[in-house]
Amino acid sequence: MGRGGDADAMPDEFSLIERLFEPLAGPEGLGLRDDAAVLTPLPGRDLVLTKDAIAEGRHYLSSDPPDTVAKKLIRVNLSDLAAKGATPRGYLLSCAWSAETPLDWMEAFAGGLKDDQSKFGLSLWGGDTIRVSGPSVFSLTAIGDVPSGQMVTRAGAAAGDDLWVTGTIGDGALGLLAAQGDYGATEPEDRDYLISRYRLPQPPVAFGGKLAGLASAALDVSDGLLGDLDHLCAASQVGARVDRSAIPLSQAFATCLASDEKYWELVYGGGDDYQILFAASSKQRSTIESHAGEAGIRVHRIGALTDDHVNGVQVAGSDGQVQQFSRWGYRHF
Amino acid sequence: MGRGGDADAMPDEFSLIERLFEPLAGPEGLGLRDDAAVLTPLPGRDLVLTKDAIAEGRHYLSSDPPDTVAKKLIRVNLSDLAAKGATPRGYLLSCAWSAETPLDWMEAFAGGLKDDQSKFGLSLWGGDTIRVSGPSVFSLTAIGDVPSGQMVTRAGAAAGDDLWVTGTIGDGALGLLAAQGDYGATEPEDRDYLISRYRLPQPPVAFGGKLAGLASAALDVSDGLLGDLDHLCAASQVGARVDRSAIPLSQAFATCLASDEKYWELVYGGGDDYQILFAASSKQRSTIESHAGEAGIRVHRIGALTDDHVNGVQVAGSDGQVQQFSRWGYRHF
Repeated sequence: MGRGGDADAMPDEFSLIERLFEPLAGPEGLGLRDDAAVLTPLPGRDLVLTKDAIAEGRHYLSSDPPDTVAKKLIRVNLSDLAAKGATPRGYLLSCAWSAETPLDWMEAFAGGLKDDQSKFGLSLWGGDTIRVSGPSVFSLTAIGDVPSGQMVTRAGAAAGDDLWVTGTIGDGALGLLAAQGDYGATEPEDRDYLISRYRLPQPPVAFGGKLAGLASAALDVSDGLLGDLDHLCAASQVGARVDRSAIPLSQAFATCLASDEKYWELVYGGGDDYQILFAASSKQRSTIESHAGEAGIRVHRIGALTDDHVNGVQVAGSDGQVQQFSRWGYRHF
Repeated sequence: MGRGGDADAMPDEFSLIERLFEPLAGPEGLGLRDDAAVLTPLPGRDLVLTKDAIAEGRHYLSSDPPDTVAKKLIRVNLSDLAAKGATPRGYLLSCAWSAETPLDWMEAFAGGLKDDQSKFGLSLWGGDTIRVSGPSVFSLTAIGDVPSGQMVTRAGAAAGDDLWVTGTIGDGALGLLAAQGDYGATEPEDRDYLISRYRLPQPPVAFGGKLAGLASAALDVSDGLLGDLDHLCAASQVGARVDRSAIPLSQAFATCLASDEKYWELVYGGGDDYQILFAASSKQRSTIESHAGEAGIRVHRIGALTDDHVNGVQVAGSDGQVQQFSRWGYRHF
């Protein structure tokens, strides 16, 4: 674990690492007392690596509780590993703390990391901590593994495959609106639920570990359902037909939608769900449902892949009408 | 490669990744078109992972050329791999660009990455890019490998081992002063040299790859020679005696030192050298010198390790006087 080369803050940063992060270190991290982590890969396994950063005021609100910021940072990365069929093993972390960050905020942040390490079975291997004059930025590299050659990519789906999604869609984006107070007449408990989904994504990590060798293609829903589906279609050279009524919505989201149809936009393009969108042969239905049951999560079949690669993603409404999305789905130009 | 969940900037960030980073991707990065990188580890090799971030105004100056910022980011990480005896393979990168960063700055930054990828033999595997309202922060995770069980730690040195350092010491810290204009009567070419050393550390990457199985302990000199040496001593439970006159200095640094003894402080505690400080049995002298010759770098024996763990680091001057450094060497309290 490095100090970031900042001589004036040196004792601080060393103490910080010792106090906050050493208790989180796995054996690969050598107590965070060396310059690097060392990993002896397991035979017959490939490593899967992903890296996502979050910034204050951009991916989380300054008023968000620090433990949920830490958990969000871990989970936005674990959703990528889960979507690749990987089991998480460890992570490296860069903390660029804003100058104003008090120690108790940092301690609560480390507490959030600790909770999620236990929950998801990974440990801290290294990283560094620096101070910046602007808002805080946290960057995490998560490492997982899969049986050799079995990482699930975006590119393996075939026309005719079922299209599945885990959890519910739209809660993260609506939760952000709720956290910002930009959310009308809804019951307080619904509001709390939605805000908690924005702050604390619930990626299906254990279920993701079962997707290797089962899903033909997958990715996490982070940019918006239809945009992400379009990525899968582009990579796999297929089209997709989504049955709008099959998209799983939380009760809180459905209540909101009943008051105004405009919230469909958050279902289609809201992002921040960190669920898994995946394709699989229809022969796998019972296996998929059984794995989901074991992992304690819900999966829904929301449509199927087609050979209409040219038109890409289509959504069929309950009235039978089909909406055509552009190649880039709900991307904002 | 992820987009960081920022809907408004979406087309921008996708295009940026395609334009700037896709050409840098190695096969493990899957064209940066998937959610994660996949690595099939080589049999008989351990992976070595390190992560260091740099921030604008903190680890580089806003006026520094963007290609050297990129190279500095790569090199401050490669110096850690080199000090562990590892050969670099790939990296993941998080760019948190300040809102003001223009495209041509980003392009020059990517150009710097490209140059150093070729120079040091590694490729881009993934990462993400976001915008922040404060100064830019870049975080890099570098991955290398070593023969299994042979990563060089800080902890393997024994009393009696030689103490070596690569390159020259102090140039980085003096170069920062020079870049800030805080540097007196020195020839312009010396100033240019020193600034270039601050901007562009020269970690001995190829030589580092030879240290596995050869050095008993090592680390990179990033926090300051004596402070880093103290880390090695603490981890190895030894003391050290450094011969001050043996510490390698550049001609530019020596000229400066001749004008004012105070610059010794930069030799002892200046940091930012990114050279390797290592210990090895005296039986290895000719092997070490031969590897250094092949790698085209210079190595100097600056002292030896002792069994005086209690007193830790001592420096013997040319007058025979011995200076005792505290357990934490030149750390600033």
